[in-house]
Amino acid sequence: MQAETVLIVGVGLIGGSLGGALRQAGFAGEVIGMDVDPAALATAVAAGLIDRGVSEVPNQVDIIVVCTSSDQIAEQVAQWSDRAELILDVGSVKAPILDALAQSAEGVPANFVPCHPIAGSERSGPGAARADLFAGTVTVLCAPAGAPAARAAAVWEAAGASVCHLSAADHDAMLAVTSHLPHLLAFAFMLQVDEEQLSFAGGGFRDFTRIAAANPELWWRILRMNRSQVLRAAETFGAHLEQLTRVLAEADESEGMRLLRSAAHLRQQL
Amino acid sequence: MQAETVLIVGVGLIGGSLGGALRQAGFAGEVIGMDVDPAALATAVAAGLIDRGVSEVPNQVDIIVVCTSSDQIAEQVAQWSDRAELILDVGSVKAPILDALAQSAEGVPANFVPCHPIAGSERSGPGAARADLFAGTVTVLCAPAGAPAARAAAVWEAAGASVCHLSAADHDAMLAVTSHLPHLLAFAFMLQVDEEQLSFAGGGFRDFTRIAAANPELWWRILRMNRSQVLRAAETFGAHLEQLTRVLAEADESEGMRLLRSAAHLRQQL
Repeated sequence: MQAETVLIVGVGLIGGSLGGALRQAGFAGEVIGMDVDPAALATAVAAGLIDRGVSEVPNQVDIIVVCTSSDQIAEQVAQWSDRAELILDVGSVKAPILDALAQSAEGVPANFVPCHPIAGSERSGPGAARADLFAGTVTVLCAPAGAPAARAAAVWEAAGASVCHLSAADHDAMLAVTSHLPHLLAFAFMLQVDEEQLSFAGGGFRDFTRIAAANPELWWRILRMNRSQVLRAAETFGAHLEQLTRVLAEADESEGMRLLRSAAHLRQQL
Repeated sequence: MQAETVLIVGVGLIGGSLGGALRQAGFAGEVIGMDVDPAALATAVAAGLIDRGVSEVPNQVDIIVVCTSSDQIAEQVAQWSDRAELILDVGSVKAPILDALAQSAEGVPANFVPCHPIAGSERSGPGAARADLFAGTVTVLCAPAGAPAARAAAVWEAAGASVCHLSAADHDAMLAVTSHLPHLLAFAFMLQVDEEQLSFAGGGFRDFTRIAAANPELWWRILRMNRSQVLRAAETFGAHLEQLTRVLAEADESEGMRLLRSAAHLRQQL
């Protein structure tokens, strides 16, 4: 494999970790970083996540990875796709990005492969980045027909992830359940907690609510972009919660045990 | 402090960990264990959590700690309270236990101090026990007036916990929010997850659902015993969730951001 020049736009948790992983793997000849925040760029260079920072997108690089906020991605991909052979993103929502590009004057760039690494943390910024963030994780590729999916897969595999392929719609429906709804529920739960209760938080509380400590601006954008899928998932959840509370109100032991066992059995498979 | 003889009834996660902690602290002259499961007793002895196992409650010990299922505690406390100077339990629900004792022929034993160590794990049994399980945690004491609370506190402090005092009603309302409701929500959430979605589980999903891997029989009993408080907490949760989904459906950015920031801000204090 020849050494590539990779530009990472947005050197936060995901972008910074990807830079660090690609550098460690020797995948890239050079990993260049760009960020609206000069302090983030300096941190990323100092931590060895990128080779150097730039203040604008160079005219020609091999690969651009757009690691910015989900609501900026479509516009940035359209703007920069002709500066690279391959352009990726890491947004948590996929169909709205492809839809926005499809409706633009130029359409979906032929060299764009939408990606979503299923990895993260409630922390953010390059200070939270780790070169092993993607080790053992899955990255979902939602490549349109004809897009250079194999070349995109090589990036994630170099970073330690395995790759799977889903349509953008299937991805968004899946992630609405496995990631976006848990965040919505954890945020909703924290709205009823007060400071005194916080001092009685055990390990279960801490784990259950950890994702509610995530960046609220970032998560509002994700929830809003995928809102039809998230609202559908929330409705399904509401029906299950109502079923459980009804069974509890009726003290229906056999049905209550059946539901709890079914839930616990599935979770124990993880 | 003179060495006490402590009998632990039920050498699972909590009882086994307490035995191990008291032995390490040199608190007890002897830690005796009793369990309906002979294999659990053998495991607890082999792991150094207890000195020896017995098959029935001795006529006289200094302290009995009842670490059995919440729905058995009242009957067992009534049965054994005259065999010890001090009898404790570790149940996750307190008012129903005191109520059941108050309605019994003998009333609430004068030497009974209801306790709830806020520590645990989704795992159970003596194989999951750890002598440091209580280090840095809080144990809530719901001692009726005149009960030997200071002597009970010494047990938990020897095990590494700090102690606080609440009425049984306040405890049950508090724990309904901080522990029982999160379990109910995690169980309800898992009811909508399928095996394919499980394979896309990231760190957020894992943490959010960890408590749904807990023992379903044990949790059904806790939820059922505290059901009026749990149902009240679930209703409050439902109102917050409805508020969040309405704001999301309306794409009301300023209100959505305000709610998410408020939730995240509180959780970040932990």
